[in-house]
Amino acid sequence: MQVNFTPGPSQLFHTVADHAKRAFRENIPSISHRSKTFEGIFQKTTEGLKELLSIPNNYSIFFISSATEIWEKSIQNLTESTSVHFVNGAFSKRYFEIAGQLNRKPHLIEVEVGKGFSINQIDSYQTELIALTQNETSTGVSLSADFIKAVRAKNPDALIAVDAVSSLPYPQLPYAEVDSVFFSVQKGFGLPAGLGVWMVNERCIEKAESLLKKGMSIGSYHNIPTLVANAKKNQTTETPNVLGIYLFSCIVEDFLRIGINRIRQETDYKAAVLYQSLASMSQAAPFVKEQVDRSKTVIVAECGDHAAAINKYLANYGLMPGAGYGERKNKQLRFANFPAHSKEQYELLADLLTKFN
Amino acid sequence: MQVNFTPGPSQLFHTVADHAKRAFRENIPSISHRSKTFEGIFQKTTEGLKELLSIPNNYSIFFISSATEIWEKSIQNLTESTSVHFVNGAFSKRYFEIAGQLNRKPHLIEVEVGKGFSINQIDSYQTELIALTQNETSTGVSLSADFIKAVRAKNPDALIAVDAVSSLPYPQLPYAEVDSVFFSVQKGFGLPAGLGVWMVNERCIEKAESLLKKGMSIGSYHNIPTLVANAKKNQTTETPNVLGIYLFSCIVEDFLRIGINRIRQETDYKAAVLYQSLASMSQAAPFVKEQVDRSKTVIVAECGDHAAAINKYLANYGLMPGAGYGERKNKQLRFANFPAHSKEQYELLADLLTKFN
Repeated sequence: MQVNFTPGPSQLFHTVADHAKRAFRENIPSISHRSKTFEGIFQKTTEGLKELLSIPNNYSIFFISSATEIWEKSIQNLTESTSVHFVNGAFSKRYFEIAGQLNRKPHLIEVEVGKGFSINQIDSYQTELIALTQNETSTGVSLSADFIKAVRAKNPDALIAVDAVSSLPYPQLPYAEVDSVFFSVQKGFGLPAGLGVWMVNERCIEKAESLLKKGMSIGSYHNIPTLVANAKKNQTTETPNVLGIYLFSCIVEDFLRIGINRIRQETDYKAAVLYQSLASMSQAAPFVKEQVDRSKTVIVAECGDHAAAINKYLANYGLMPGAGYGERKNKQLRFANFPAHSKEQYELLADLLTKFN
Repeated sequence: MQVNFTPGPSQLFHTVADHAKRAFRENIPSISHRSKTFEGIFQKTTEGLKELLSIPNNYSIFFISSATEIWEKSIQNLTESTSVHFVNGAFSKRYFEIAGQLNRKPHLIEVEVGKGFSINQIDSYQTELIALTQNETSTGVSLSADFIKAVRAKNPDALIAVDAVSSLPYPQLPYAEVDSVFFSVQKGFGLPAGLGVWMVNERCIEKAESLLKKGMSIGSYHNIPTLVANAKKNQTTETPNVLGIYLFSCIVEDFLRIGINRIRQETDYKAAVLYQSLASMSQAAPFVKEQVDRSKTVIVAECGDHAAAINKYLANYGLMPGAGYGERKNKQLRFANFPAHSKEQYELLADLLTKFN
């Protein structure tokens, strides 16, 4: 039995294979995306997600093929020319770069990898959109709700987009003080990859409509007005990943049954156990130095020349960490701490690391 | 036991559920899209598809989330401003409309629904791209290889894009005389929805690069140069629908084992049986009058006021036709004739229709 700690695609939640079996038995992969059955699945998923994460009713929820696509569509629909990007790793950087590829003029606020941003750094920006990567998967740095609120306090007019790809359902995000939130299902929801979830409030819808009115292209089948029109019917524009949406509906139901508080408490507990273990090691240490910046859902260990040895040692016990990202591939190990990873697995992991020599 | 004749999502090919079971057993939905395992699946799929369909080696193959997305990306990457669209139904029309949404100036060549185009109609066009819908899913009209070749003969310089969404693997397309071909896996390949396949030759790559050089935006993560760079590594840009690509690789392997000739012969046989049966009915008739225009893979029956009764009659035997498209919803029935539909099922269907009173 192996446990996959790679931060996405990661370990599947333990119920997924059974849900998939039932899906095939009930012919879900073969249903029309214009059928009542599909509309029921769509509605159950979006309503369940709103309940699970306490998402206000002024949000619309769209199913998109990946968070990467949402980077593109959010720039296209929410900016005419300007965006400000808080960048502290490869994924926040990629969001910034995509704005450039769409011929916008994005502005970069960058700190070293492994570092977070302080509230004192926040300015008032002349910009249409502020892009925040709430959890930077490449470095294991996360932004607090207080930081996000402080961005809004100084920038009441700009739209705020929050990339929560590798953290939800864990964080309690201040939805009322941001405008767009998105994530992928193959991380915290423990599902097969192939589905991104994009949530936008009415300010995003108005912005997209105003760009359209100016004669700008905001894309075609996945522009916000088209997504809204279809979502109102509990439908998608294109033939979507129906099986993926069905499996997502099942996991949202499972998570509601477990309870979001318990999921959050267990995430906190598992993170504490692993950070403590890393802090006790002589051959490794938490990469992110400041406690306040440390992600609870993607935990990065700086291992120097010991990374390969630690990796091999854990693999002997069936525990498979993710490699470091990019140029830190051979020096770091990354551990996803998602609901699919049990307390017992985390206790074993932490125990083994403490004993590593 | 029900048989789904809706033209997509349609009946799953009979091996898919077992392939999915194996995928979960082998942790495929949890593998990294940067792993050797994934690269192996990618390579096996694209090489298998080239063998199955006799696709020349100058084509690159990309996995995209839907054919709808390929409409958008092909306009964005292959045109600066002009395209010509042969339109004879809702889906060819949608491709045309998407070009408008992307602020291009598309030109429309339209015939009535249920009609095809004649070779005499083809002109030399001052355009960058000619869009052909080889099989119009809404009406059951298809274009012959000779027609497509005639378009190229009169338009050697324009790029030609062929929408074969609801016909492949059946048609023998003149790949050497077109430049871009695409389809979705939930039709002829009998798979769960959530994956489109886009094939482009080197002329498309050059065109996209030339637009980029001019400073145009050709999109971000799914622009052709980025897709090519990743496909060369047997990878995708974003975290893709890994399970979908795996299942596709399995079906390509199954189809290779069955043999493309047998698949084509059986498709011809089943189409002949159903068209003959429809022609013999007094309450229904083939919607497409000209034999040469009739699709072999999406067969549309004009049923007038008898549509509901025929539908109900077939449903008693577990045979579920698709409704007519759009405004013809209550007057027509559509029958997918894909490899997932067996000869026996088609014989039963045709037999029942002949006996309908």
